[in-house]
Amino acid sequence: MPTTTLSGQEFSRPRLESLLKRRFFFTESFEIYRTAPNYKGDNRGLYDYGPPGCALLSNIVNEWRRHFVIEENMLELDCTSITPEAVLKTSGHVDKFADWMCRDPVKGDFLRADHLVETVLETRIANNKLTPADTSSKSKAEQFDEATMQQYKGILAKIDNYDGPELGKLIEDLDIRNPNGNGKVEAPTAFNLMFKSTIGPSSAAPVFFRPETAQGQFLNFRKLLDYCQGSMPFASACIGKSYRNEISPRSGLLRVREFLMAEVEHFVDPESNKAHERFSEIEHIELPFLDRQTQLSGKTTVETASIGSAVRGKLVDNETLGYFLARIYMFLIKIGADSQKIRFRQHLDNEMAHYACDCWDAELLTSYGWIECVGCADRSAYDLTVHSKATGTPLTVKENLPEPLEITEWQASLEKKLLGPRFKKDAKKVEAAVQALDQNTLENLAAELAEKASISIPTGEALADGKTTAELSGDMCSIKKITRVEHIREYTPNVIEPSFGIGRILYSILEHVYWYRPQDTAREVLSLPILTAPTKVLLVPLSNHDSFKPTIKSLASRLRSIGIANNTDTSSVSIGRRYARNDELGTPLGITVDFDTVKDGSITLRERDSTAQVRASEDDIIEAIKNLISGSETWKQVSQRLPAFTGQAQDE
Amino acid sequence: MPTTTLSGQEFSRPRLESLLKRRFFFTESFEIYRTAPNYKGDNRGLYDYGPPGCALLSNIVNEWRRHFVIEENMLELDCTSITPEAVLKTSGHVDKFADWMCRDPVKGDFLRADHLVETVLETRIANNKLTPADTSSKSKAEQFDEATMQQYKGILAKIDNYDGPELGKLIEDLDIRNPNGNGKVEAPTAFNLMFKSTIGPSSAAPVFFRPETAQGQFLNFRKLLDYCQGSMPFASACIGKSYRNEISPRSGLLRVREFLMAEVEHFVDPESNKAHERFSEIEHIELPFLDRQTQLSGKTTVETASIGSAVRGKLVDNETLGYFLARIYMFLIKIGADSQKIRFRQHLDNEMAHYACDCWDAELLTSYGWIECVGCADRSAYDLTVHSKATGTPLTVKENLPEPLEITEWQASLEKKLLGPRFKKDAKKVEAAVQALDQNTLENLAAELAEKASISIPTGEALADGKTTAELSGDMCSIKKITRVEHIREYTPNVIEPSFGIGRILYSILEHVYWYRPQDTAREVLSLPILTAPTKVLLVPLSNHDSFKPTIKSLASRLRSIGIANNTDTSSVSIGRRYARNDELGTPLGITVDFDTVKDGSITLRERDSTAQVRASEDDIIEAIKNLISGSETWKQVSQRLPAFTGQAQDE
Repeated sequence: MPTTTLSGQEFSRPRLESLLKRRFFFTESFEIYRTAPNYKGDNRGLYDYGPPGCALLSNIVNEWRRHFVIEENMLELDCTSITPEAVLKTSGHVDKFADWMCRDPVKGDFLRADHLVETVLETRIANNKLTPADTSSKSKAEQFDEATMQQYKGILAKIDNYDGPELGKLIEDLDIRNPNGNGKVEAPTAFNLMFKSTIGPSSAAPVFFRPETAQGQFLNFRKLLDYCQGSMPFASACIGKSYRNEISPRSGLLRVREFLMAEVEHFVDPESNKAHERFSEIEHIELPFLDRQTQLSGKTTVETASIGSAVRGKLVDNETLGYFLARIYMFLIKIGADSQKIRFRQHLDNEMAHYACDCWDAELLTSYGWIECVGCADRSAYDLTVHSKATGTPLTVKENLPEPLEITEWQASLEKKLLGPRFKKDAKKVEAAVQALDQNTLENLAAELAEKASISIPTGEALADGKTTAELSGDMCSIKKITRVEHIREYTPNVIEPSFGIGRILYSILEHVYWYRPQDTAREVLSLPILTAPTKVLLVPLSNHDSFKPTIKSLASRLRSIGIANNTDTSSVSIGRRYARNDELGTPLGITVDFDTVKDGSITLRERDSTAQVRASEDDIIEAIKNLISGSETWKQVSQRLPAFTGQAQDE
Repeated sequence: MPTTTLSGQEFSRPRLESLLKRRFFFTESFEIYRTAPNYKGDNRGLYDYGPPGCALLSNIVNEWRRHFVIEENMLELDCTSITPEAVLKTSGHVDKFADWMCRDPVKGDFLRADHLVETVLETRIANNKLTPADTSSKSKAEQFDEATMQQYKGILAKIDNYDGPELGKLIEDLDIRNPNGNGKVEAPTAFNLMFKSTIGPSSAAPVFFRPETAQGQFLNFRKLLDYCQGSMPFASACIGKSYRNEISPRSGLLRVREFLMAEVEHFVDPESNKAHERFSEIEHIELPFLDRQTQLSGKTTVETASIGSAVRGKLVDNETLGYFLARIYMFLIKIGADSQKIRFRQHLDNEMAHYACDCWDAELLTSYGWIECVGCADRSAYDLTVHSKATGTPLTVKENLPEPLEITEWQASLEKKLLGPRFKKDAKKVEAAVQALDQNTLENLAAELAEKASISIPTGEALADGKTTAELSGDMCSIKKITRVEHIREYTPNVIEPSFGIGRILYSILEHVYWYRPQDTAREVLSLPILTAPTKVLLVPLSNHDSFKPTIKSLASRLRSIGIANNTDTSSVSIGRRYARNDELGTPLGITVDFDTVKDGSITLRERDSTAQVRASEDDIIEAIKNLISGSETWKQVSQRLPAFTGQAQDE
């Protein structure tokens, strides 16, 4: 998908990739092994971050912590990745956390089924041919007719909505084959995406490496509720690695097998309408939406609306979900995303994770298309309910009712002394059947019992006598209307979950901030915001002359002591070359120390995007840097306030 | 082992554990599953950090980053945990990263052999009996004689020095049995400690979850060297989770299966004597040493010496190792360790990891004994050499020599056209044997060849003709003295590795800072330094009265905006109770807002350890807090400068 750079230039992914590799933002893990002779192993989808990538990553994480955890007083946890099978069996991941996979029996390739359909149909559309372009032996390809084109586009718009059998049918009907060799593939099978291992010396206890951080937060719900002294709503948060054994990783950092997640679990009373007390602070914010209906009609048109009106119009289900969508948007902009390349897309029904009842993704536009970077799901009470049931531990909130509640209802009581001898080992089934009766039925049965000697209760399953009903006499069972008073309300909270893929966000932003100087395409720049830039200030002595060293050393230590990340480049290349190198690293500010510094103590300050420079005393420049970093002054203000510098140490 | 608290009180581990659980510093992971009926699974050794534990952890990590990475301009990496088998095969972990384990065939227990010996001997010493105290059927236990006591103590002092067969012999000779049931155990077998899984859909590619972060750093050596423009020495660093499948975890946070590590790999020229340019800054620092000789003589006496004299006297091998020991000591003190409970212990020969040539542990004294918290190993050129060999990628430094080097040496050259027909498939072996000859031998052989028609070369292994020498005639082999000029020196760097177990440090420090108020043992305090305390300031309104709310809200937001973590406690209990709760959380400062605040804007500031309070304006108090946090003022100075407060809102 062609995209443009910040300054409207055509975006070239290979050029950006080359820059990121050259400057060691990240690299494929174990690269020296991958290229070694005889190395076999499927280790795609694993990346290491080098020094600038690692700093960018930790700046994004720190800002995430400030923007979400600290700003909202969330309770941060650090939970283990290793998770016993029982936990993930309960949560549904053991049975349902899978992708559909097709095998090519000839090549031995494993292909993710939805990606296979997508790739082949996109290729056919791009080539305007019904057979893959790379199969020259089948060159008598038919031209597309308009109906086929529309059919394909419709399939692609809702590609995430197909399940395995449906994908199998598409592959069959449209004769979709492995692009590598054009062989037929087998029908899709489900492949579980979790990494499995065993724990302890007996090798008998299976564990998984977590596919999300959420489960650890749910399991600690009672302790969290205690910690915040029972006050609802509250949110927990967790930042940590998660693991997914992707079938066939591609797209660099966008689909990896080990990745950093940052997740919030916001616990809320379902009877509060999921209102949010700070909603009014953000309701005016305009967000770009792509809803479910639009997608199902085969379109991808984005509609912009304020989050306030989106919630009022029920496009977004509730205030809490809406609040987080707006906060996510603000966060993405702050760390460097291009506002023109963000949209919020609602999940289709089949696409939602097994635990979710509604979900919106924040997607960022990249050269790979629109990429899901943040999921914001309403997980309802799903997780707390299933874990509570599996462990026998109540994961609920108990609240004193403002006023005691009088409840009048029909209630059946059984005479167990009679029930036992009559039904023997069926007695429990009968008891359960009676407990399951609803209020209407109970009322009718009470009336019946007043008239007849016995009533007949449906048991669902057959009893020992072969019948599916139990006859209960009046002395075995009585049904009365009773009134009780409740002082406490007990409920299972619902959960709203904003879930961030930090690596995907990081890569997408690198695409958003990349451009090159119009006068020289080889002079590339990463216009990262000062907040997330790996290094804030580059220190450049004019040369290796000894007289510059004390100033450089004292500047470095002064900046370090006020917490400003800086780097010194003493290499022997020209100042322009050194600045160019740091433009590629996204370093927003540069200080030059030259012979005038030795004379009068003045230094120059250069701004990355404009390459403009000012000259002033050390104190004034450091003050300006502090202001620029804290956001209390813009570069425009600084450059108007301090004298411009147009001397020797300019960019070349 | 009995230890005392900060204020000399007897330390009680159960009381500290109860506090840490009550305040949710950490908890066993999946606790609601462990206590559920029917749950089977060996998930010991896994812990989650709750909000205060998580904040303490991240404060320690941030200080680590400042103290090591930023201060020394280290190159930080973020590498994957998932590691292909080939990498860990090369590094030696697949074959050697194991503990010795004994199985009790009756109980089905798996026991770590060294821990078994240790536990049983310690119990015998404690009970002054030769059989375990808990085996009442064998009550005719003999008294210890002095010789046995000395033998046991000698074994315990070097328990880390025994290999599997030696441990097996001790178990046999001393009739050491499983304390659980007193059954005999089987001979020790090696149990590999890595978690294994497979990657990709074919399940054919084995991977491990890393047992240390170091390998990722070694594999990126070339990129790191490029990044720092070839300048040596330099260091890389990595903070991240590692995984070890411990046989039988015990001791809470001290022996866990998933843990946070922070590791430095300092790459240094081996011919530089491993000198360190900043050594003079720290050489005066006094460190407590327990060296190898002392331990082998069965003693644990600590000798204090300056690191300068320790390096000069060769107790510590070199300046770089010494520099890091001193920096580690400074770091531990800064984050809250008690200087009286730190020692540096040298590893015994058999105890060292397979890659290390010297190693010192920083150990912290806890109620579990002395605990290894930081390892500081000289890994020599081991890792870079083996990975380079396995991948065919040179992991070396090339340096221009200041002056070209003229090298004169004996060199053998072979006539391969003649060698092949003569030795056939042995030809390569013969070639290798000739290449392996040293200068002395070459010189002698040259003389021999000048006199005789042929020479005889030892081949080590037998050739096809059954002989272990090869006869080479003068036309097959010539040996000459040649002179060549080298302009470049190529070498494999050595690595000094300080490696931190963050969870162990965190727990040990919690023991170090724990005490209780002498007047009331129930009033427990964690005297964490302000630098690492989870929350810096507690905000306490006198009551829930509406007039206090605006001040509390504005103070919270003011503190947050200058990056000071704070928390508000609006619960309805007394101020004293609320302060006591926060003493347990280690919160160093507290602000009270009362009716005088509403009248004159003044607030009180309380210091945790002394419970003393001062009263002043909001601005003055916030100024004081900033100074206390930055370290520019002590509490003593603040309390002398600002008026003391002895009014209503005192501790009770």
